[in-house]
Amino acid sequence: MSHSRIVVVQSSPRNDTLSVTRQVVQKLLEKLAKLSPNDKHILNRECAELPYVDKEFTEKITNPCKHNPNGDKVASKAWTLSWECCEELIQSDIIVIGVPIYNFSIPACLKSWIDLCTVIKRTYSFDESGPLGLLQGKSAFLVVASGGMEIGCAYDFGTRYLRHILTLWGIAHITVIDVSQGQVERALQQIEKITSLVPPTAPMVKAHLPTYNHKPAMIHNSEPNPLNKDGLPSTEPTDMLAVPEE
Amino acid sequence: MSHSRIVVVQSSPRNDTLSVTRQVVQKLLEKLAKLSPNDKHILNRECAELPYVDKEFTEKITNPCKHNPNGDKVASKAWTLSWECCEELIQSDIIVIGVPIYNFSIPACLKSWIDLCTVIKRTYSFDESGPLGLLQGKSAFLVVASGGMEIGCAYDFGTRYLRHILTLWGIAHITVIDVSQGQVERALQQIEKITSLVPPTAPMVKAHLPTYNHKPAMIHNSEPNPLNKDGLPSTEPTDMLAVPEE
Repeated sequence: MSHSRIVVVQSSPRNDTLSVTRQVVQKLLEKLAKLSPNDKHILNRECAELPYVDKEFTEKITNPCKHNPNGDKVASKAWTLSWECCEELIQSDIIVIGVPIYNFSIPACLKSWIDLCTVIKRTYSFDESGPLGLLQGKSAFLVVASGGMEIGCAYDFGTRYLRHILTLWGIAHITVIDVSQGQVERALQQIEKITSLVPPTAPMVKAHLPTYNHKPAMIHNSEPNPLNKDGLPSTEPTDMLAVPEE
Repeated sequence: MSHSRIVVVQSSPRNDTLSVTRQVVQKLLEKLAKLSPNDKHILNRECAELPYVDKEFTEKITNPCKHNPNGDKVASKAWTLSWECCEELIQSDIIVIGVPIYNFSIPACLKSWIDLCTVIKRTYSFDESGPLGLLQGKSAFLVVASGGMEIGCAYDFGTRYLRHILTLWGIAHITVIDVSQGQVERALQQIEKITSLVPPTAPMVKAHLPTYNHKPAMIHNSEPNPLNKDGLPSTEPTDMLAVPEE
């Protein structure tokens, strides 16, 4: 087995001593190491160091085929880090995400990571029936910690959203390590029971999205045409995302 | 009527010329001015200038009764801005939020604003039956723009989440200005039809949350007890939020 590349995405602002997600992620990594003792390459991504999507990103993302800052001397930090974060995902076999639930959803910095990683032709694409994830065959582990909210309850806007985005990217195998309501011991028991990194045959995954519009421009974003100087909608297309070249 | 204080919360990284949410928000403000021609005080809050919740915030929020940076010479930017953002909400009658949908949810910077504003005894509290919002009697207008996603669809993780948080804060009157699928003109027509800033009698609102745990510490966060040096859950309470003093 060659499941040797792991990207670890951390979104807690707390350090290893205080952060439950970091500590449970560490236990999970130790378990994964036992299951696959061959050489591993672990990449660490700290979401708190990522910027918000900026104006330049919203402009450049309309042509993501140029999504390589190497030929772009004036790329903003967001654009450059978008390339790096996508590369980490593409080159990894396993994605581990530490998620402390803040106010019923994911931390803002983890949303920044998602926005930087959701790039057409990099992590997802389109075919005739809708969006198609490009991260096929990878598996994801979400370590979700919550002081009170039960993971998966009607008010869990975090876990459900993460599943949706990972599915959009084509990731079929999603394991949620449940550290809700302070049940760390239960989470450690859940980790102990993990017997494989990923099922042997990973099915192709398609995001089950409404077929509202097959134009790739429609997925990522967002702001439609601005108003013209008369206060009416402009006829110029300004959708910020993702028309493929062909 | 004294509905004269408006806080305008912007989360698009684009400027006035390119951002649809900013332009539609402007049209909305003009309409609100017509409905209430008395003196108005408009506060502007740019979410892109807000930091992520930081380590200091996660520590200080456990004692939000000290949520005033004036007596705190070493307050972090997040802690100081949390105070300011809460003050803006408390002092306003109307909250207008510009929301470009990115990847089926709100921008990361708007989540930062929510995390900085969800502070016990400032925007919400608890009584014997659960959480109780403290921003009673205010009204909110959400200008939600999306290139493709239909507002309110099963994959709209943004609007539904915002409604949930505003309800938690006690805001009963929420109007969504729908700029989904590029339908700017429809949004402008919707704005034209607005006839009042807020219904004359605002009912008390309670968030309908599961009664999983009445301890105030449970709402905001998040990470439960860390593991001790033996890798077992610590018995020391470290929930980061919000135990009231009484």
